[in-house]
Amino acid sequence: MGAMDQRLDLLTLGVPDLDEARRFYLDGLGWTATLDVPGEVVFIQVGHGLLLAVWGAQDLAADVDGTPLSPAPAALALAQIVQTEDEVRGVLDGAAAAGGTILKPAQPAAFGGYHGYFADPFGFRWEIATNPGWHVSDDGVVTIVTVEQP
Amino acid sequence: MGAMDQRLDLLTLGVPDLDEARRFYLDGLGWTATLDVPGEVVFIQVGHGLLLAVWGAQDLAADVDGTPLSPAPAALALAQIVQTEDEVRGVLDGAAAAGGTILKPAQPAAFGGYHGYFADPFGFRWEIATNPGWHVSDDGVVTIVTVEQP
Repeated sequence: MGAMDQRLDLLTLGVPDLDEARRFYLDGLGWTATLDVPGEVVFIQVGHGLLLAVWGAQDLAADVDGTPLSPAPAALALAQIVQTEDEVRGVLDGAAAAGGTILKPAQPAAFGGYHGYFADPFGFRWEIATNPGWHVSDDGVVTIVTVEQP
Repeated sequence: MGAMDQRLDLLTLGVPDLDEARRFYLDGLGWTATLDVPGEVVFIQVGHGLLLAVWGAQDLAADVDGTPLSPAPAALALAQIVQTEDEVRGVLDGAAAAGGTILKPAQPAAFGGYHGYFADPFGFRWEIATNPGWHVSDDGVVTIVTVEQP
């Protein structure tokens, strides 16, 4: 009792406009909601046992302790690892077409892969990257082999 | 090409003090790093194919476009679903003992479960909750059954 499992089940983003979030993530990116309660919340599956939720920022603040939440950009990045540089460029282009803002165009990354960043309409950053050192086993264990930089 | 998969592989939190992050998440919570590069970054597995990274906030900002990141509290919450109310209380107590701050003590939640929130040393919020409507299949698909409120 008291030990916290090493596990994230849900990431909730607090947004000022839930309809705009729905337009971007569902209509724009074409993602499918696990549960969509108009005017309330949208849950989207983004991994094995993992949901992303978009919820009104004021509702989220009130659910915690009422402290107002900071405006964007939050000190975090969501990331997706893809396999090819073409995919990095394609996903960034698709995100821009869906209403995202390209913050860093696709380019070689300091860690040895290739990456770029976009922001969703609320300023949450998504990194799209290849990472030749990132390996996921069949049972979901991730290993990272750091690549020596030239 | 251009379609973005509905998938989150990595969540990076930008923190002002990486050593303090290591003390909280590794020493305090007892979590194990997948990759720990002192002074640089810590990666922690938090799900099937999913890593949490803690990285210097300034490094993260510089990696994107240089825009300074907002101070806490960010408009988001990480969450972990547990099975019992005792677990909610136990995890919150454990997080407090590890250096977290209880923002909302364990209590019945509006959605029909039981929950509480703590903040890590940098103000990132973690919700610990039971949710009787949250089900994960063997292959990782999450369904949410909304429970009618009394």
